[in-house]
Formats: sequence, structure tokens, C-alpha cells
Amino acid sequence: MRTAIAAGRLAPGARLPATRLLAAELGVSRGVVVQAYQRLVDEGRAAARTGSGTVVARDAAVAPRPAADRRRTLHELRLPLSTPDGVDLNLSPGVPDLSAFPRAAWLRAERAALDRMTASDLGYGDPGGTPRLRAVLAGWLRRTRGISAEADDILVCGGVAQGQALLAQVLVSRGEAAMGVEDPGSRGTRDQLTHWGVRTEPVPVDRKGILVDSLLESGLTTVLLTPAHQFPTGVVLAPDRRRELLAWANDRNGLIAEDDYDAEHRYDRAPVAALQGSAPDQVAYLGSISKSLAPGMRLGWLIAPRRMQAELLAAKHASDLGTSALPQLTLAELMISGDYERHLRTVRARQRARRDALLAGLRAHLPRARVRGIAAGLHLLVELPEGDDVAIAERVRAEGVLVHPLTWHRLLPGPPGLVLGYAAQTPDRLTEAAARIGKAL
Amino acid sequence: MRTAIAAGRLAPGARLPATRLLAAELGVSRGVVVQAYQRLVDEGRAAARTGSGTVVARDAAVAPRPAADRRRTLHELRLPLSTPDGVDLNLSPGVPDLSAFPRAAWLRAERAALDRMTASDLGYGDPGGTPRLRAVLAGWLRRTRGISAEADDILVCGGVAQGQALLAQVLVSRGEAAMGVEDPGSRGTRDQLTHWGVRTEPVPVDRKGILVDSLLESGLTTVLLTPAHQFPTGVVLAPDRRRELLAWANDRNGLIAEDDYDAEHRYDRAPVAALQGSAPDQVAYLGSISKSLAPGMRLGWLIAPRRMQAELLAAKHASDLGTSALPQLTLAELMISGDYERHLRTVRARQRARRDALLAGLRAHLPRARVRGIAAGLHLLVELPEGDDVAIAERVRAEGVLVHPLTWHRLLPGPPGLVLGYAAQTPDRLTEAAARIGKAL
Repeated sequence: MRTAIAAGRLAPGARLPATRLLAAELGVSRGVVVQAYQRLVDEGRAAARTGSGTVVARDAAVAPRPAADRRRTLHELRLPLSTPDGVDLNLSPGVPDLSAFPRAAWLRAERAALDRMTASDLGYGDPGGTPRLRAVLAGWLRRTRGISAEADDILVCGGVAQGQALLAQVLVSRGEAAMGVEDPGSRGTRDQLTHWGVRTEPVPVDRKGILVDSLLESGLTTVLLTPAHQFPTGVVLAPDRRRELLAWANDRNGLIAEDDYDAEHRYDRAPVAALQGSAPDQVAYLGSISKSLAPGMRLGWLIAPRRMQAELLAAKHASDLGTSALPQLTLAELMISGDYERHLRTVRARQRARRDALLAGLRAHLPRARVRGIAAGLHLLVELPEGDDVAIAERVRAEGVLVHPLTWHRLLPGPPGLVLGYAAQTPDRLTEAAARIGKAL
Repeated sequence: MRTAIAAGRLAPGARLPATRLLAAELGVSRGVVVQAYQRLVDEGRAAARTGSGTVVARDAAVAPRPAADRRRTLHELRLPLSTPDGVDLNLSPGVPDLSAFPRAAWLRAERAALDRMTASDLGYGDPGGTPRLRAVLAGWLRRTRGISAEADDILVCGGVAQGQALLAQVLVSRGEAAMGVEDPGSRGTRDQLTHWGVRTEPVPVDRKGILVDSLLESGLTTVLLTPAHQFPTGVVLAPDRRRELLAWANDRNGLIAEDDYDAEHRYDRAPVAALQGSAPDQVAYLGSISKSLAPGMRLGWLIAPRRMQAELLAAKHASDLGTSALPQLTLAELMISGDYERHLRTVRARQRARRDALLAGLRAHLPRARVRGIAAGLHLLVELPEGDDVAIAERVRAEGVLVHPLTWHRLLPGPPGLVLGYAAQTPDRLTEAAARIGKAL
């Protein structure tokens, strides 16, 4: 009856069947029907009229609702939720090998977390994160990334994206609404900063990383960058640039937002330590398990200068009261057991083999191409001597291979290139991809 | 050496030991030391000088950092992270029985979710939530709460708190910066709305729920309320008020933000359906598993009128790209298996016994007190005939029992009362609590 009333099939003023009759028809006691009618009355869908039983209330019908245009919304957000038709080799950068997710180890860690968890772990806790994960992470990041942080300095959040959002909110509330971003750089990040009211200004990236001279000229006091493996060029920030950048931050009391997004994947040698360890009062460090485990986990951390921590904690609290406790506790167990590190080693060896296969294929099929950004990460850059990389990417796509033209990630014009993510494909498939790219070019 | 440099124990300009000597001393090959020095150089902590080996770089020391005053920050956010000294019976409202969390069932559901999960479930997905949970939730909410929604209408988020934050952001961006809130009502919610730039205006609550006449007089077009079990008075919105409220929303094209926060816990009969089902174009429905499973899960949902959905989805995307997928998929399995409903039944029976014990105790020890809000939820209200409820709550606390004075939750003055949460205590302890409250009064 509720459905019929909402749909207008039982019109306003229409009398509902007498309770005694309906009960007999349905084979239930009259009390059941009386209760059901009373609920309709309580909900405002019916009204009890002395002498005339229960009638459908005025305005009880719900007008049919137009469908929301979700497809358009998702398109406007530029969400790559599916692979385009005709593409069987998706080399979009930024996504790790999701089939490698360590399901058994995660479940084992979760069991340990559930066993160890106290009732208060499940309550409204510290919005900065569970004490256990923060302590384990502080040790892990000190050891693997040279981070300078106590457990309390860590703000656990919903991936690097939420860390950036919180940072943007605090900066804008302080009137610091301009931020330098790498060019080429992540379009998604720029869009996100714009959403929060930050004005992004391009700072060029060359083969040694961000041009600190340009940053100096710009007069900016805040910059966001990816020093361990620049997105999308793959450059590792060169030592002299690193020194210049730290000097800039020190001289101008600047803020460096350091997105350490795929630092775990360094192939030739141990990765250079994060900038944060050299200048903890000038760096807001962002990390996550999106590239080491899976983006869908939405679990990351922000380690900001202490002068910003109170405002960031308040912003996190106002956003969602804190990140889900159970995945935090599970990640802590995964790190303590050594399973996290074992997983990273396995994946790193696998990624390296994939990179090597793609490299060998490109050398065979595109012998004159210069390939950059191969020391680390989940993608590399093919520099093109000339031409329109958007048109070239279209030709590659006609061969069933999806790659990103470098232009997509640029704010200002620059040399053409193709960005190739290799994490999610097997070596055989990458060899095939290189052959098709060679054919298209 | 990195630590010694950062701490200033190795001063700028100081020469590092010759690689050959250090290698011999440590019993490693010289190549290892050369590599380590190179890393210090790359990190800007040391410099290689031709002829004079490697020296500590200028500005390589990191100044000692003042400790952040976290205690003050947490206090300012009013986070009840610990029970005050001298309190052994914490009857703060708003927290369910965390010891009842169904660990075994959750782990079982997670195993099923991990088995069933595809690689793309772990990628950057739809920021609105996983299709599977949204489909399961739509069915569950239609059946248990009379909600009118398709799967795509559901925005999965980090608890009701994030749903409110997103709603506030969208309203403020549309220039609709005023919202009516219940008085008495949740202080945390008011603080959160204020953070996002919403001006909250008190709308009085009496024994039938929110005073719709006051809402009409106010000229407001948006109101946030808790109709299933008002916080903190415990009132269930009366049928005539419900009708008036829906008429208000229809006439003014108003927006009702319906926080259905503990609707699962109705003791006397099946709960009245949510308002949303009667007016899906005027109601933004908020729900979560905070009271049914645990607040620490930070998992909830927002079902908004379709005209707002695109903006809310964009706000969610800009906030954190979406909620963690694995807990979503686990909750879906928990609902499909029937374990969620079984858990709710078990908890409901337990809560009811706790309520009854507290009620019996209050009748015995405070025979003249009027007790309200007992039909549902996890807390009740003791109306006091007169006096300063803050001072009375202090006297109760001196007996080791923590309760909330109703005044804490008021914006405008009103009759005194005590809010008692009974979910987290056993019947015996609640009887004891009632005896001590009786003694204190």
C-alpha cells in the first residue's frame, strides 16, 4: 500500500479497505492490519477519519523523479572508470598491478587486528589516526624514507588526495591561495586544488626535475611536487635541484608539499630519502598505499610542519571525524609481520621485469625514441622528436593501445611525448604494445 | 651519519671519514660506503670536494622542533578521547556497545568480499561508492526504512559526519548558508556546520519533536533533524509534526537533512519509515553503521535529491576520491549473508534489556523523575523539575557517573535535564548508576 500510495495508484482521499476485510483476505489477524494502517498514518501517508475508516492522505503521492545524468557528471570529473572500446592494451599511467593485491596476507593481518583490537579502537577516536598505525608508520617511514616524525606528527587520511584537500583548505583559510605545480604534472591534482580555491601556477620541469629558478622568479611561497619520480616525466629530482629547492624553502619560509607517490618502486638502487627528513618544518609530506597495495584502499598519510598540524587536524575532524580504524589497524599488522615489505619486494621485482620488457620492445620497435623516467615508478616517458602527441596517441589507440599524450598533462606548451604505464600488463603484453606503438608511429 | 648530520653532531664543513678507513672499520666493502656517501650527497646533506673527500653540507642540520600542543588541539575539538579521572560509569550518550562488534562475522564477510572482489574493485573507482554496496544498500533501506532510491542515488561516505560536511559545502557554494538545527541538538554537528561556513539557527524541540511553526516563522529553507530518535531528547517525531514538516518542505521547496542515526534501535514496535520515502526530492537522507556496528568504521551514506547529486559527487571526489572499497564490499557481504540483520536483532534485544534496567533503577531511586525518549535509541532523558543541570551533573560525576547535562546541547535556555547513554553498560552497572544518581540528587 505504501508503494501504491507513493506511485499515485491509490489516489488522495481514497478509502483503504476495512481492516476486518483486509485481514480476512490476507489471512492475518486484524491487529496486524490495524498496526500497518497506523504506520501509514504516522508516516503521513494516510489519515484516520472517524466513521469513514482510513483514507489516503493529501499530497501522499511522490512525483516521478527525473533520472540524474550520472554519465555526464562522471565524464566532467574525468574519471577513467572503464577502458574505451577497441582498446585491449590499457597503458594509462598511475594504476598499479591490482591483481597483485596480497589478499591472503591482508586477511591474516585483519584477523590479527581484530584479535588485538580493543573496544575503544572502534569508538570515536583521535581524528589523526589510530595510535598503533601512527607509531608503526613513523618507524617505517624513518627507516625507508628518512622521514623525521614522531607518531603524533602523522595525520592518517583517505589517500594522498585527502591529504592534499586538507592542505589546500588550511592554506586557503590562511589567505595563501597560490601554489606552484609541476608542468607537466598531474591534471587531477590541479583540478582538485582548483576545487578548494587554490590558484595553481605552472613551474616548468626539465630533465633534472622542477626548475627552482622559475620558482624563485615566481615569488610563490608554496609548491607541490613529486621529487622521487616526477609525474608524468619520471624524472628523479637531481641533487643540485634538491639543494636549491631546500635553500628556497629555507630562505622564503616556503612550504614544499612533497607527494612521495611511488617512492617504493625504485629499481636501480635504494631510493633517495624524502625531502621531509631534511626540512621537516618546510615540508608537508604525503604518502599512501595506493601504489604499493591498491588505490581503492584510500589510505594515506600527511606529515606536515608542526605549525600547521592543529589546523589540519581540525579540518580532518570537520571532514569525516577520522579515517576508518580497522584498515588502519590491519595495515599496522601487515607492516609489523613483515608481509608488507615482502609484498613490496615481490612487486618491485615484477615491475622491474615489466619495465625491462617494455624498454626492450621500444628499443626494438622505436630504435630512435628517447625513453625517460625509467629509474623508478610505474610508468615511463617516450620523448617524441616532433609532432602532435595527441594525434599520435590517437593513432596508437587505433592499434588498440591506450597511452597518454604528454600534452594532456601540460599547462604550457612543450615538447611532445607519450606516457606509458606498464604496471598492470605482463611482459608479453608489453612487448606486443611496443610493437603496435612502433607500427602506429 | 644522516642522523648525526641532522642533529648537528657532525658540523657543516666537517670531513666524513675516508671511505677506505670506514669500510675497514665496519667490515664492509668500500663500494658500500661510497654508495652511502653518494646518497648523503644526493640528499643534500653532504658535498664531495675534489681532493678533500666528502664533507658535511652547509645548512644540513635540522633545527630541533618544538612539540605540537596536541592536548590543547584535541581539547578545542571537544574530543572525549578518554574517561575523566574518578569516573567508573561513563554514561555519555552516542556510543554503542563496542564490545558487541561481530568480529567473526565481519572477518567471514571480508573473506567473501576478498574472494569475490575483482582487480578493478581495488582501482580508482566511482567516487560515489562500489556498485555492489550501493545496490545492496538500496534494497536494505527500501525494506527497513521505506527509502525511495536507486543504487546510483546513494553516495557512500565516511559516516554521517562526512555526508553532512559534503552537504554543507554544496549548500554554501550555492549561497544557501543558513540551516535550522534542533535545539537542544548535537553540539558536534553545529560545530561542524560552522566550520564549513553554515550559519546554524536554533529551532526549538518539544515533546513532539521539532516545532514546525518556529521553522515556518524563521523563513529558513533548510533544516537538519533527527526524526527517528531526536538527539538528545529521544523524542520520536510525532505524526502531525511529520505532516507539517513535509508540507513545509513542499510549499517552500525546502531541504530536510534527515539524520537517521539510530533508527535501527526501536524497541516498542517497527520504526516509522524515514521521511525521505515521502519526499525524495526534498530530503537528504543520512545514515551509517556507527550505531549498528561501530563509529570507528566511518562508513555511511547520503541519499540526496537528484538535483544536488552531481555537486555532491564532485565534492566527494575533491575530498578523497571516494571511500575505501574493501569495507564497502565487506558490509555488502554482511548484509547479503543475513549476518547484519542477525547482529541488529541481537543488539536490539540487549539494548532493550539495558534500557529496562536503567529505567527500573531510575524509578526506584528517582521515583519523581520524568524519563523521556525511551522508545528507541541508545540514550534517554531524565527531565529535572528545576535547578542547574550542569551543577547536578557535577554532583553525579562526584559519585563516579558521567552523564551529560541537557544544557550542554542547548543553544537557547530551557528546562534542565540529564542525558544518559545506556548502550555501553551492563544491566547490573546501570542499576548501580541509577542508585548513585539517586544519591547525588
